[in-house]
Amino acid sequence: MKKIAILNGPNLDRLGKREPEVYGTATLADLEALVRASVPAGTVEFEFFQSNHEGELIDRIASLADRKFDGIIVNPGGFSHTSVALRDAIAGSAVPAIEVHISNIYKREPFRHNSLTAGACIGVISGLGFAGYSIALQFLLGRK
Amino acid sequence: MKKIAILNGPNLDRLGKREPEVYGTATLADLEALVRASVPAGTVEFEFFQSNHEGELIDRIASLADRKFDGIIVNPGGFSHTSVALRDAIAGSAVPAIEVHISNIYKREPFRHNSLTAGACIGVISGLGFAGYSIALQFLLGRK
Amino acid sequence: MKKIAILNGPNLDRLGKREPEVYGTATLADLEALVRASVPAGTVEFEFFQSNHEGELIDRIASLADRKFDGIIVNPGGFSHTSVALRDAIAGSAVPAIEVHISNIYKREPFRHNSLTAGACIGVISGLGFAGYSIALQFLLGRK
Amino acid sequence: MKKIAILNGPNLDRLGKREPEVYGTATLADLEALVRASVPAGTVEFEFFQSNHEGELIDRIASLADRKFDGIIVNPGGFSHTSVALRDAIAGSAVPAIEVHISNIYKREPFRHNSLTAGACIGVISGLGFAGYSIALQFLLGRK
Amino acid sequence: MKKIAILNGPNLDRLGKREPEVYGTATLADLEALVRASVPAGTVEFEFFQSNHEGELIDRIASLADRKFDGIIVNPGGFSHTSVALRDAIAGSAVPAIEVHISNIYKREPFRHNSLTAGACIGVISGLGFAGYSIALQFLLGRK
Amino acid sequence: MKKIAILNGPNLDRLGKREPEVYGTATLADLEALVRASVPAGTVEFEFFQSNHEGELIDRIASLADRKFDGIIVNPGGFSHTSVALRDAIAGSAVPAIEVHISNIYKREPFRHNSLTAGACIGVISGLGFAGYSIALQFLLGRK
Amino acid sequence: MKKIAILNGPNLDRLGKREPEVYGTATLADLEALVRASVPAGTVEFEFFQSNHEGELIDRIASLADRKFDGIIVNPGGFSHTSVALRDAIAGSAVPAIEVHISNIYKREPFRHNSLTAGACIGVISGLGFAGYSIALQFLLGRK
Amino acid sequence: MKKIAILNGPNLDRLGKREPEVYGTATLADLEALVRASVPAGTVEFEFFQSNHEGELIDRIASLADRKFDGIIVNPGGFSHTSVALRDAIAGSAVPAIEVHISNIYKREPFRHNSLTAGACIGVISGLGFAGYSIALQFLLGRK
Amino acid sequence: MKKIAILNGPNLDRLGKREPEVYGTATLADLEALVRASVPAGTVEFEFFQSNHEGELIDRIASLADRKFDGIIVNPGGFSHTSVALRDAIAGSAVPAIEVHISNIYKREPFRHNSLTAGACIGVISGLGFAGYSIALQFLLGRK
Amino acid sequence: MKKIAILNGPNLDRLGKREPEVYGTATLADLEALVRASVPAGTVEFEFFQSNHEGELIDRIASLADRKFDGIIVNPGGFSHTSVALRDAIAGSAVPAIEVHISNIYKREPFRHNSLTAGACIGVISGLGFAGYSIALQFLLGRK
Amino acid sequence: MKKIAILNGPNLDRLGKREPEVYGTATLADLEALVRASVPAGTVEFEFFQSNHEGELIDRIASLADRKFDGIIVNPGGFSHTSVALRDAIAGSAVPAIEVHISNIYKREPFRHNSLTAGACIGVISGLGFAGYSIALQFLLGRK
Amino acid sequence: MKKIAILNGPNLDRLGKREPEVYGTATLADLEALVRASVPAGTVEFEFFQSNHEGELIDRIASLADRKFDGIIVNPGGFSHTSVALRDAIAGSAVPAIEVHISNIYKREPFRHNSLTAGACIGVISGLGFAGYSIALQFLLGRK
Repeated sequence: MKKIAILNGPNLDRLGKREPEVYGTATLADLEALVRASVPAGTVEFEFFQSNHEGELIDRIASLADRKFDGIIVNPGGFSHTSVALRDAIAGSAVPAIEVHISNIYKREPFRHNSLTAGACIGVISGLGFAGYSIALQFLLGRK
Repeated sequence: MKKIAILNGPNLDRLGKREPEVYGTATLADLEALVRASVPAGTVEFEFFQSNHEGELIDRIASLADRKFDGIIVNPGGFSHTSVALRDAIAGSAVPAIEVHISNIYKREPFRHNSLTAGACIGVISGLGFAGYSIALQFLLGRK
Repeated sequence: MKKIAILNGPNLDRLGKREPEVYGTATLADLEALVRASVPAGTVEFEFFQSNHEGELIDRIASLADRKFDGIIVNPGGFSHTSVALRDAIAGSAVPAIEVHISNIYKREPFRHNSLTAGACIGVISGLGFAGYSIALQFLLGRK
Repeated sequence: MKKIAILNGPNLDRLGKREPEVYGTATLADLEALVRASVPAGTVEFEFFQSNHEGELIDRIASLADRKFDGIIVNPGGFSHTSVALRDAIAGSAVPAIEVHISNIYKREPFRHNSLTAGACIGVISGLGFAGYSIALQFLLGRK
Repeated sequence: MKKIAILNGPNLDRLGKREPEVYGTATLADLEALVRASVPAGTVEFEFFQSNHEGELIDRIASLADRKFDGIIVNPGGFSHTSVALRDAIAGSAVPAIEVHISNIYKREPFRHNSLTAGACIGVISGLGFAGYSIALQFLLGRK
Repeated sequence: MKKIAILNGPNLDRLGKREPEVYGTATLADLEALVRASVPAGTVEFEFFQSNHEGELIDRIASLADRKFDGIIVNPGGFSHTSVALRDAIAGSAVPAIEVHISNIYKREPFRHNSLTAGACIGVISGLGFAGYSIALQFLLGRK
Repeated sequence: MKKIAILNGPNLDRLGKREPEVYGTATLADLEALVRASVPAGTVEFEFFQSNHEGELIDRIASLADRKFDGIIVNPGGFSHTSVALRDAIAGSAVPAIEVHISNIYKREPFRHNSLTAGACIGVISGLGFAGYSIALQFLLGRK
Repeated sequence: MKKIAILNGPNLDRLGKREPEVYGTATLADLEALVRASVPAGTVEFEFFQSNHEGELIDRIASLADRKFDGIIVNPGGFSHTSVALRDAIAGSAVPAIEVHISNIYKREPFRHNSLTAGACIGVISGLGFAGYSIALQFLLGRK
Repeated sequence: MKKIAILNGPNLDRLGKREPEVYGTATLADLEALVRASVPAGTVEFEFFQSNHEGELIDRIASLADRKFDGIIVNPGGFSHTSVALRDAIAGSAVPAIEVHISNIYKREPFRHNSLTAGACIGVISGLGFAGYSIALQFLLGRK
Repeated sequence: MKKIAILNGPNLDRLGKREPEVYGTATLADLEALVRASVPAGTVEFEFFQSNHEGELIDRIASLADRKFDGIIVNPGGFSHTSVALRDAIAGSAVPAIEVHISNIYKREPFRHNSLTAGACIGVISGLGFAGYSIALQFLLGRK
Repeated sequence: MKKIAILNGPNLDRLGKREPEVYGTATLADLEALVRASVPAGTVEFEFFQSNHEGELIDRIASLADRKFDGIIVNPGGFSHTSVALRDAIAGSAVPAIEVHISNIYKREPFRHNSLTAGACIGVISGLGFAGYSIALQFLLGRK
Repeated sequence: MKKIAILNGPNLDRLGKREPEVYGTATLADLEALVRASVPAGTVEFEFFQSNHEGELIDRIASLADRKFDGIIVNPGGFSHTSVALRDAIAGSAVPAIEVHISNIYKREPFRHNSLTAGACIGVISGLGFAGYSIALQFLLGRK
């Protein structure tokens, strides 16, 4: 059974509460349910983790590496654009990672166009809403 | 039956021939077969189009708009980073579009990090290889 | 009788269809009719040409030079901001040219403020809608 | 009867005296006569104003707004490239304005390519010589 | 009774200890006393919070939003210039916020002139020392 | 009795007339009344001055210095972002100054984020509306 | 017998007609004759191709790769400075290429100093006039 | 008898009052006396002019041109770094001008290193204190 | 006995696990042992601390200042390039600090060349591997 | 008999010793022999000169000008990218010069893409190895 | 008797030979004679030195400092824009220095507008031709 | 016995004379004595070399490579920030090098933060005063 972590960064605990006209009304719990429901029960061991703390995300990525996870789906939120440390954590974990953004970063302010963390991931999915997570999951499961 | 176009830009006709160590040995025909196979036969009307000509891509996008296509999957290749005209074509078509890059643009030269065309699309999938196309297809089909 | 060409670049064939809230509902045919109607019949030999292909615009400009046209009115659309080749074509033709933009480029995204092609023209008219074309025509006809 | 103001900024009182090889030998009075002559007598109430003082131009624009002018034709000269205050004055007046430059700003030094004031105008005419003013006038009169 | 939070970011726990020639000898406790004393007792429910952890500040802002606070006075310290995540937290909270800096950021190093977080606040007070906090408080209380 | 000047720069005479959806309907006279009313009558000698002329503002600041004013509250409007001369005037006056902006400059166009004049002031208040002026006044009066 | 292609980009069909004071009066046909004459008859199979269309140049480069050409001499004209797609085509062809510019790009406008396409070539010859082509030819023939 | 104007820009009326530790205690009157004393009485017709108004400086330069002055010594103060209009005035006057700065602009803030106006002058003297003016005078008198 | 702290920032807990081809196989524990062994037992009171949390590093630096440490050796990892808050913490502690990087930051990506934190330290040692730590220790011990 | 100088700048004395995987194993002496052998004996008077000293290269260029050389082939090495003085020397000599780089500067670090010296030469040959020198020689000899 | 050195940097030995249309036909010897003649014989001990070698100029400046010179007049030529080492030499000598440029650097290419060395001098004279040297001499002699 | 060179660049011969408040009063001879004293006599063959000439430093580095030195300690002074040629010399020598700066370059002017030469060295020590040299020596001796 594959082990996949879904990491959500700062402010994603506020999904459904924060700027619903931008992010919709579905919550982080809804997102987790949706991801779980996207694979047959018992085929994936999930670890869901959200933190507003850059350090906790780095700690967790290190832990995932030690526990031999097969993949990471990470939405670093605002850290995407500013965190060299998180980039180093992903690169150093050697766990395959997909970066996901709910909204299309190229449609937002210029300081969101750049992603420091993306350079340490296999790829990036941006703008596909919650579906980006289950898509990333399918990709990681299908990857040899 | 939904009508979906898959547009590939410059040099993508060279898939399988060009820098196989970067892009793999599968060809554009393989890519098209893979996309077709990813949905039940007869459920989608596909239009595959590849061109090295910016103008032909713009013409085609206009034509897709006139023929009321339901979605566009577009890999603008090198035009992503330089073409305001292609961005305008996508924006002007009002057809929902997903931009796909086979490799992760954030891992390549800095002049590939920026995407002018992405700002006119719903979202972007970068670095997931051929799978990016079928993922984009699933997304467009599932979108209401 | 003076020979004047009106060249329209990428996506201008979509006038009336594309983002009508920005560009209005009048079409390219309407524009051509308006330009024709702005001078007494038989006083100007017009050549109208629209293309989404940078190369076709360059080819046509060369042809106009060979055929001794008296003036060019050119709306290079998105090519204005990216095409050194089109700039060179205009400069190399030695035909007096006026660049026209329907909308005011200084009110749009920063990447539209710059015009590479304008440096090869006599002048620029931006933001006056379709009227920009007939104004340019009057100017070229009145020029000695 | 429409009320139209023609505002000329710094150094335009020197027309005909200043660098005639660039600007020609016609004077500001010639320009005014030309503009007056371009419409039937008595159809437009003109207000001509030239100043080398940014503040006087701002004062005058405010006055035009209070006196319900129908349009402003403004050549801000060197202020175009440096004055946020003049931009704010035009924007704040709510009087439709056209920016005119006698020479083509894209053919001059790079610090003249940018126009801060143009972003507050309907449009810009650059490089058409004195004719730019009468063209702008026709445009403002024809505008509904 | 209005609920107002006063959030202080990194190194502000060092007030009175750190570079007293720049920041004075008064401490964070002094600051809190001063803020409390600036309104009649019992008229405001205060929550004082200082943290050197970006994540804790984000957590707290989320909590304040959930607990329906009426206003936030935030001095993000060094995070002002680097944290997109904190900006998103403030914007996402929908609680009116005022950013305060004890010193005038425009008098310091260029990398302190920019404030990412300020764009998510109602306004900014910079350089008025401790008084900036009580001023912000008065403003928030007086705001309808 | 303390002597305090309130200087307003370009276009602030248009308060209440200019873009009321941005700046509200209150006028400059309202602002002055509000500032006067914010202190007990007879406790402050006020000098109100508005000008659209950079030079008049500089002249006045020099005059205030000669007349030993105790403080200046200055809203340089569009000059904030472009005037080295005004910065020099404030710095050279040695009168304590507070810069005020009615709107939050960090929420507006990027060319308004920078303030050249702020570097010569004690501090800056931005985005608190008219209240910014009375706040600045309180601060200057309370300053030893 | 070696197979060598000579590709000329936009506006080079205008040689002899376009700005003769810059480019001389010799034509593209003269250039081709000169190149042919620079090697003994029958020792090289030449393919001459000029196009103003970026896409045609890319198509042709792909075709040359398929037909196992031994070398490409390419003058991308204005595309040198703007075309990522053409750079990708050259790099993807794996045919050794030399970039030639008739004039010295370092003596012209700054936007011509950079060459995106040169990074995909073996080398660059700039400023040696038509001779650049025959020099490139000698180099390619002599290369093992 | 040669006619020479000495123009001083913003804040130079404050010499001796403003930041004496930077500019010394001598006044503008001292400066004028010093300049007068540096040539035999009756050999030069001087015109001294100081203004904090950019427009007045431009007006005066135009007037000097009309009155056939032989030279201008100009210290544009803070306008040096921001005024395209003043540059145009100097260039348009065709009167030989020397730009003088009392302090060395290369030793001050980076935004003072650039001089827009200097490009329209014969030369620049910076950092030589008041002596810069009499040196400029000697130079203009000695020039044929 | 001198009190020296050795602080390691994000991802340095992964030494020996992370990219061993870049950082070697020795662990953080090895590093600590090496540092301890580099001075005679009992001559230095060490405090080793590693954290992936910017806030914990700031907290710790504050604590070291309160406990009167004689020196800090800090490897801020990825925070070096992005954290104003950490820079402020070091500067505010008034404890002499040496910044250490295991690899040479000038040989890595451009975004690692800059160090915000280094400006608050006595000096920087970069590229000398683990030895950088014991060198920094010797330096701090030898410093008067 | 034509007089041609071949100047090699810094580190080119190390050819064959320095990074042979980049520059090959042939030495500077080999290069000189190759250049001599490329023309019939006695047809060209050569002067070979290598120096790691910018000043010596400038001295030599001056000397070549005085001795009426017919051409200079110069590989300024690292000075190409940093030396205004060398550029001035070439421009001031009025001797026709060709700049040669053994490797393709567009394939190397970005700080090597720019060439200050190239703007003072007739043209540039980059990336053709040693052959670049003999090509430049042929060009200079064939030039009228 | 005061000791004054006149240092001329690269290519200034070519005065009268190099681009006479820019620099005139007078030679460096003429310049030296002119400087000598500008003071009464025997009142100044001159040291004239020209070099194309940055290192020799630095050596000489050090020597002048050791020999207690009273002033340096330095025209660093092209080194002005590129040499941190020369700037350090001037700053380190503690001998008062004036930088002289024969032409006005603000009228030339943008890479000549900046002067690194000027920041270490008392002042700069640019564009006054040879006279700049004697002016600088007068200034240094008159300085207390 | 290991052979180690200590190279000092421009102005370092002035140690003890130049800006002693920045660099202290110890001389270059003191520095050499200190370095010699830091290892047991007879264990290292030293070569000390100082030059203000970039070319001499390059020559010397080449010579050290030929004479099989085991290490270089280099303080390139002002050349660190401007010399591509020196960077190439170090890289081309293949002798392990450590770059040393007496002061902390990150605490000085921005143009000193960058080091072109550092990218060719093993590592950099900055800000540790003279100790930086003996530290570098210990490092090179201990390196296998």
